[in-house]
Amino acid sequence: MLTMQEALQRLIEYWTRQGCLTVQPMNTEVGAGTLNPATFLRVLGPEPWRVAYVEPSVRPDDSRYGENPNRLQTHTQLQVILKPDPGDAQELYLGSLAALGIDVAAHDVRFVEDNWASPALGAWGLGWEVWLDGLEITQFTYFQQAGGLDLDPVSVEITYGIERILMALQEVRHFKDITYAPGISYGEAFGQAEYEMSRYYLDDADVAANRRLLDEYAAEAQRMVDAGLPVPAHTYVLKSSHAFNVLDARGAVSTADRAAEFARMRRLAGDVARLWVARRAALDHPLGVSAPRAPASPSPVPELTDNRARTLVFEIGTEEMPPAEARAACAYLRRAVAERLAATRLTHGEVRVAATPRRLIATVADVAAREPDQVVTVRGPRASAAYDAAGTPTAALAGFARAQGVATEAVETAEVNGVPHVVVRRDDAGGAAPTVLATALAPVVTGLRGARNMRWNDPQLSFTRPIRWLLALWGEQVVPVTVSALTAGRHTRLLRTAAEPVVAVPTAEEFAELIAVNGIVADAEDRRDLVVTGAQDLVYPDGRVDVTAEGNLIDQITYLVEQPTPLLGAFDEAHLELPEAVLTTVMRKHQRYLPVRDPDGVLLPRFVTVANGPVDVDRVRAGNEAVLRARFADAAFFYAADRRADPATLRARLARLTFTDRLGSMADRADRIAALAAALAAPLGLSPADAATLRRAAPLVKFDLGAQLVTEMTSLAGEMARDYARHAGEPRDVATALYEVELPRHAGDAPPRTLPGALLSLADRLDLLAGLAATVGLPTGSSDPFAVRRAALGALAVHRAHPALGALSLTVGLAEAATLQPVEVPDPVRRDVADFLARRLEQVLTEEGHPVDRIRAVLPHADRPSRADHLLSELATLADDESFRGVAAAIQRARRIVPDGTAAAYDPGALTEPAEVALHEAVVAVRSELGPDPDLTGFTRVAGRLVAPVDTFFTDVFVMAEDPALRAARLGLLATIRDLGAGLLDWPQLRL
Amino acid sequence: MLTMQEALQRLIEYWTRQGCLTVQPMNTEVGAGTLNPATFLRVLGPEPWRVAYVEPSVRPDDSRYGENPNRLQTHTQLQVILKPDPGDAQELYLGSLAALGIDVAAHDVRFVEDNWASPALGAWGLGWEVWLDGLEITQFTYFQQAGGLDLDPVSVEITYGIERILMALQEVRHFKDITYAPGISYGEAFGQAEYEMSRYYLDDADVAANRRLLDEYAAEAQRMVDAGLPVPAHTYVLKSSHAFNVLDARGAVSTADRAAEFARMRRLAGDVARLWVARRAALDHPLGVSAPRAPASPSPVPELTDNRARTLVFEIGTEEMPPAEARAACAYLRRAVAERLAATRLTHGEVRVAATPRRLIATVADVAAREPDQVVTVRGPRASAAYDAAGTPTAALAGFARAQGVATEAVETAEVNGVPHVVVRRDDAGGAAPTVLATALAPVVTGLRGARNMRWNDPQLSFTRPIRWLLALWGEQVVPVTVSALTAGRHTRLLRTAAEPVVAVPTAEEFAELIAVNGIVADAEDRRDLVVTGAQDLVYPDGRVDVTAEGNLIDQITYLVEQPTPLLGAFDEAHLELPEAVLTTVMRKHQRYLPVRDPDGVLLPRFVTVANGPVDVDRVRAGNEAVLRARFADAAFFYAADRRADPATLRARLARLTFTDRLGSMADRADRIAALAAALAAPLGLSPADAATLRRAAPLVKFDLGAQLVTEMTSLAGEMARDYARHAGEPRDVATALYEVELPRHAGDAPPRTLPGALLSLADRLDLLAGLAATVGLPTGSSDPFAVRRAALGALAVHRAHPALGALSLTVGLAEAATLQPVEVPDPVRRDVADFLARRLEQVLTEEGHPVDRIRAVLPHADRPSRADHLLSELATLADDESFRGVAAAIQRARRIVPDGTAAAYDPGALTEPAEVALHEAVVAVRSELGPDPDLTGFTRVAGRLVAPVDTFFTDVFVMAEDPALRAARLGLLATIRDLGAGLLDWPQLRL
Repeated sequence: MLTMQEALQRLIEYWTRQGCLTVQPMNTEVGAGTLNPATFLRVLGPEPWRVAYVEPSVRPDDSRYGENPNRLQTHTQLQVILKPDPGDAQELYLGSLAALGIDVAAHDVRFVEDNWASPALGAWGLGWEVWLDGLEITQFTYFQQAGGLDLDPVSVEITYGIERILMALQEVRHFKDITYAPGISYGEAFGQAEYEMSRYYLDDADVAANRRLLDEYAAEAQRMVDAGLPVPAHTYVLKSSHAFNVLDARGAVSTADRAAEFARMRRLAGDVARLWVARRAALDHPLGVSAPRAPASPSPVPELTDNRARTLVFEIGTEEMPPAEARAACAYLRRAVAERLAATRLTHGEVRVAATPRRLIATVADVAAREPDQVVTVRGPRASAAYDAAGTPTAALAGFARAQGVATEAVETAEVNGVPHVVVRRDDAGGAAPTVLATALAPVVTGLRGARNMRWNDPQLSFTRPIRWLLALWGEQVVPVTVSALTAGRHTRLLRTAAEPVVAVPTAEEFAELIAVNGIVADAEDRRDLVVTGAQDLVYPDGRVDVTAEGNLIDQITYLVEQPTPLLGAFDEAHLELPEAVLTTVMRKHQRYLPVRDPDGVLLPRFVTVANGPVDVDRVRAGNEAVLRARFADAAFFYAADRRADPATLRARLARLTFTDRLGSMADRADRIAALAAALAAPLGLSPADAATLRRAAPLVKFDLGAQLVTEMTSLAGEMARDYARHAGEPRDVATALYEVELPRHAGDAPPRTLPGALLSLADRLDLLAGLAATVGLPTGSSDPFAVRRAALGALAVHRAHPALGALSLTVGLAEAATLQPVEVPDPVRRDVADFLARRLEQVLTEEGHPVDRIRAVLPHADRPSRADHLLSELATLADDESFRGVAAAIQRARRIVPDGTAAAYDPGALTEPAEVALHEAVVAVRSELGPDPDLTGFTRVAGRLVAPVDTFFTDVFVMAEDPALRAARLGLLATIRDLGAGLLDWPQLRL
Repeated sequence: MLTMQEALQRLIEYWTRQGCLTVQPMNTEVGAGTLNPATFLRVLGPEPWRVAYVEPSVRPDDSRYGENPNRLQTHTQLQVILKPDPGDAQELYLGSLAALGIDVAAHDVRFVEDNWASPALGAWGLGWEVWLDGLEITQFTYFQQAGGLDLDPVSVEITYGIERILMALQEVRHFKDITYAPGISYGEAFGQAEYEMSRYYLDDADVAANRRLLDEYAAEAQRMVDAGLPVPAHTYVLKSSHAFNVLDARGAVSTADRAAEFARMRRLAGDVARLWVARRAALDHPLGVSAPRAPASPSPVPELTDNRARTLVFEIGTEEMPPAEARAACAYLRRAVAERLAATRLTHGEVRVAATPRRLIATVADVAAREPDQVVTVRGPRASAAYDAAGTPTAALAGFARAQGVATEAVETAEVNGVPHVVVRRDDAGGAAPTVLATALAPVVTGLRGARNMRWNDPQLSFTRPIRWLLALWGEQVVPVTVSALTAGRHTRLLRTAAEPVVAVPTAEEFAELIAVNGIVADAEDRRDLVVTGAQDLVYPDGRVDVTAEGNLIDQITYLVEQPTPLLGAFDEAHLELPEAVLTTVMRKHQRYLPVRDPDGVLLPRFVTVANGPVDVDRVRAGNEAVLRARFADAAFFYAADRRADPATLRARLARLTFTDRLGSMADRADRIAALAAALAAPLGLSPADAATLRRAAPLVKFDLGAQLVTEMTSLAGEMARDYARHAGEPRDVATALYEVELPRHAGDAPPRTLPGALLSLADRLDLLAGLAATVGLPTGSSDPFAVRRAALGALAVHRAHPALGALSLTVGLAEAATLQPVEVPDPVRRDVADFLARRLEQVLTEEGHPVDRIRAVLPHADRPSRADHLLSELATLADDESFRGVAAAIQRARRIVPDGTAAAYDPGALTEPAEVALHEAVVAVRSELGPDPDLTGFTRVAGRLVAPVDTFFTDVFVMAEDPALRAARLGLLATIRDLGAGLLDWPQLRL
């Protein structure tokens, strides 16, 4: 058996063979190997650096007295830094697994999107978590920034979670059972320390002392920054970070503390980074300066020997793209290739594109061998200016001819727009396809851009993940696309575990088949079909996978594998006692497993996972089952612990959770939600039962955010509130309301069913909108870290779902929410939020298929969306109603004629014509009949009587009489008609 | 080339192959691997534990900005703990060197006595530093105590100094030049951190902040002790230790601080240790309990087949004994074997003994095959009590017979002391030699005791170093000596590097030759001859080794090797610019090298070192030369740095050096010495020149203790003061006085030559005597950590060397010194010191060969030893002088007769007899003629006239007259004679 210490030795040996130094762990407590100066400082600046080291990482918050099977206050990281990115870090990494004795071809090893950021260190990077049969064993990151500085060159960071890997390899279920050394278990070696340090961090650390330590450390760090000594300064930043973590684990960090501490740490880390860079420069970079990769030079294109049209295949090979990025890039590829081809004179057939996690492929049928030749005419001066009276070429002609490189005699004369000019005509020979395509396709690569982009060892490119190879073939010819350091060739890469992972492709026409026979399913739809039918086959006949409900997950899976290999796994039925939401959340979110149900939709103790490529099915299944077992055991552990605490206790923990720096803790926010819900309910006149439910639920709102299970899986918020509240003996309605406050959780999710739930949900969302708008601002662009858009959509959905809320104006609710914020929410901000809500409503209604004109017509009611809904449904009925159309037309016509600012008042005595008098009388009658706040149908019924008098009026009466008094009266009459429907609709928006 | 990281890996691999766990370094700063809980806590209690780990060890005080080639604030230790002692740890260790690629047979690897103690941790152990070609590469310790607790089982601690080993293996002269990893030097990897952390520790660390940290840490440690959590408590002990070290490096630790901090740390470490032991017991010792080795059982002895006397050889094999211990053990062996043999009835020839570092050998010629048979008579009751009147056996006889296991009829009657008793006679058959010897020799082993003893994996034995094997042969027969877990056999061990390191010895007679042909030179005199003649041969004809001057060193060397192999090495002539004392101190003390001089005694750039056994001479020479080069470079570095500082600056540093807790800093002590010297000088009437010298020298006295070179080599104190003072422009006399204050440095060393030097030296010693006597007490037994005995001897020597000091009473000087101490020195203590001095003087004079009676006679002058000297020299002359002898006899005779307490007064008128009147008159004449304070010769000349009258008196007069008045007068007259020489000599002591 591979012991843990042996595993560490093998990894260190492996990486030192790859040219890594090995250093010792940091001699002060760190939360991760990243903090060791061998990473944090060395990734800065231009010096090359390769290092591998073990780092016991201390996370006081993870203290569990050694009781939790998977969680330790000190776990062992093995950290590797490769700087610059060597270009094959993934392959090197797989080599390290092999060094551990892991047969990577038999196992399912996958790179699953996972980005990393440490705001306190001003550091971030993009990368993956690496899965071994579903188990996250490694964090793999391309570092982009540290200490607020852009990293150039970029470093690759590989962090192995050693205990996890060993638990998997040794097939044990508790970290204490890992064989650490021959005959000695992890628990025997470190169990007592794990227990005692847990005691220290959770129970016994002196809060006041650690607070003083924190301040001493930070002050010393600052002094060392001032002294220009980044190394000791960094040490003290680490010490302060640890002291902070101790305080945090002791529950002694207030929101204000946290904000202040993070700001201080970020500032110090930035100072340290800048100092280090400056010092290394002053020392003239003792380790040298790593040179960027040289630009590629294209290979020459041989003469064409054949003029037949051929297929073009263009493959852009990447490291594993996130699913959404791969999809977006595929769409981009279609547009970009089409556009670029259009800019050539090559004729071609259909452009098809495909994408997998590792490649983007464009295939173009029948691309002509050559562009047709053409004659290009270059216009020179007018003929009259080109020759003097004697017919002698002028200086202007001479200049033109010189510029064109021809003799003045060689120019011709031709009419341009009917005016004779001198012109030069030249033959423009069409280019050969390979040459033309090489030029055309290069910008396709440089134009690739993801939602979030990174740099790697390429001197120029930037994309969601590194681009590692290009294949471009036109027939059998290589199209020498050259982009930065890459040149296209005829080699593609198959699965990394293939016997021959890199192969040459003879011709473009053979490309698709070649990769297909090697297992790569290029087309996403094909992969999706394989996933779906494979899964259904596996579970048939006892179970089924709900393909519709799991649609999003299946879409994701489709882009996680190149060769889908569905596997059926099982778990212990005992776990079915956990709430279903827990089980499915673990399966879907953490593991990307498809839940399996019986024909009645009841969850079965099964799952389908989709491995990539041909694996040892039994081994991969066993691995995934072990992972799920551990995950469920973890969840069960938390679930039991949470249930032991009553809701009030959990609620009290919210004081430890920051919402935002300026908006206080989650406890503060929950307090506001409770107060706001009460305020919103006050004018509504709730039933005594609803009122009682709201009263009881409000003080507990969001209490489950203090539960361990929800801390682990935030998407379970609400679900667990309901469960725990019921378990604690709360009435069903209260539990429901506490669940419903989280609804709707996403677009398409059901809104709260009950009124107390709806009020809490609305209050939640209005609080968020008011607070964030006043502090961080409303989202613009794609970034929306606090999901403000989702909150807005939620507020609208809740309102629309509850007629009882019809009278409630969101604008008024926002004003209430604003008064509860710990910061001022100025009027313009409130107006911005109202406008933001209106635009969301417009968008929602549009997506629901309502005609745009009607939507716009009802938007004045955006603050009461259920009213807007009602109006829209009336509009749908009235759209073909002559009477309504007439009224609308009348109102619109009146509005068009009456100048802005004209009051709806007039002297009836000034009216003279019978038509106008008749209209006046009709208006008086209608106005008297219209009640206050009529609905549209009622309004139409009454106002319909105006249609005929209005028509007659416009036929008989010339409004713009010369007599000013008469004109004023007529305009006033029309203004009255214009205003009849004011407040009901924005009438001018209606297209009739 | 073996890189440093590869070396670390190889060692870890090697030790894990030996069953060691490997763990990570401590994640807080530690000064040594010993502090890691994997050592400090794990050596406690009964659980077995084997561990190997790397530990970057931080010693702020060693900060040198990375400039010193051999000294770093962070150096890399590799720490191994073997618990329990496996019995072959030395061999395992040599295996680890082989794993590093070191050919231990070609190199000179030696175990040189070096013990270890950390009072602050309540920890100590005995062991060695391991030398590789003269370079100390490893500390090897048998841990005896930690946290104040006795360790059972004992652990072996092996600590490699990695940078040193690598510098040697890679043959580089600066740590920065070590190849750390392929293509990366140590300096490149760690140089900046070394510089910056040096800056922090020496210049920039905030003193107030670190003081606060120290207190916070200690308080948190105490809280964790109180909470019963040894692991976090230990962590905080380490943190407090580091904070203390930082303060120390910043020069911010006062004497009081240091004492308090050490006391606190010792207390906390003890608490932690006790808690740990208790916790492990409560956890039922998760790693098990290591069983002690089973006692050995002797093998049966075969029947003797031959009755010839044979040789006995008894070898006790040990690990390397310190030279003094080996010598002492050898002497013990001679006594013990002789005694034990005497207690048998075996006849035998000469007992010879020999000792090397690794073995004690007793060889006894002609040991008889058997003890002679004998008849033993057991005495019973008197015959009269044994039989009743009827001759029937009494109960008494029956009881005796039963006890002897014979029938009552079997007893005989015999006279004992002339009284008839019943007796039992039985034949006592003599034992066969092997059996008798086995019993006789066992106590020889158990009785072995060194000056300082240790335990190892033996369940019972205790000695200066582990006893590993016993060989006992009588002829070809094994003598089955059984001691604890050891049984004697016929195997001996040769050099560890021998092809066959363990060999069987056929017969006792062949033993000596067998080990001799394998290179072991058992006899110390033989080894000494080999060292001396070998060295002289090597340096002939240009140089010579001063065998007399280097006698002590040669004696030591004799006991550092079993097979002396002298080698000649050289060093760079440039180093001859360093003071000779520096060079010779480094060679002798640090390296045990013999300095080489030219025929005029001038130092040559050569040295002789003595390797053990057959080595690759060139390689070992090169290694030793490199070590010496580094040592000299180090010394040159310090020398230059010291010379840049002026004496006053160095003197100021003494405030940082503690003398003792209660006696203050070295600065305090130097102040006292200066004051005392002035006080001693006052009554002497110094010449103006001497007075000026003393005035100038006194404030600088001992300033060189603040110099780096002296910190490194304390034996250079004085030498460097002279050098630095001259360099700083002080007058030659002042420099001399500053040198001479340290004289004499040891027995036989020259005393100060100048009077100012003598006064300072005397003041130094009297200060030490007064202060220490009043605080820690005068030394008893062999322990004398402050060298109080040497100080006393020094004081005597200085006084004796300077007639100018003759008038100065040491007792008076001590009284002066006492008034200057920061503590009270009570009168009884002063008297004890005076007595202590007198006993030293008696001892010195005895060693100088003066007759004991004369020494005793002059001892009343011990407080003015030069006066005692003068008296002794007079006595030597007068010893055969009739007149003197007569006077002495008269005085003694008078003393014998006169009762104690009789006053020297009488009424002359009461005297009647002519003889007594004549005597009275003679006494009166003599008394009037004797001046005050006569010398002995003058006294004799005058008092000689009494000899005849005294003789006559005793012939003619019966002193004890019946008339009381007459008797009183006669006794008074004699008492007057008795007292004539009082104050000159203790006359009764003289043997005439």
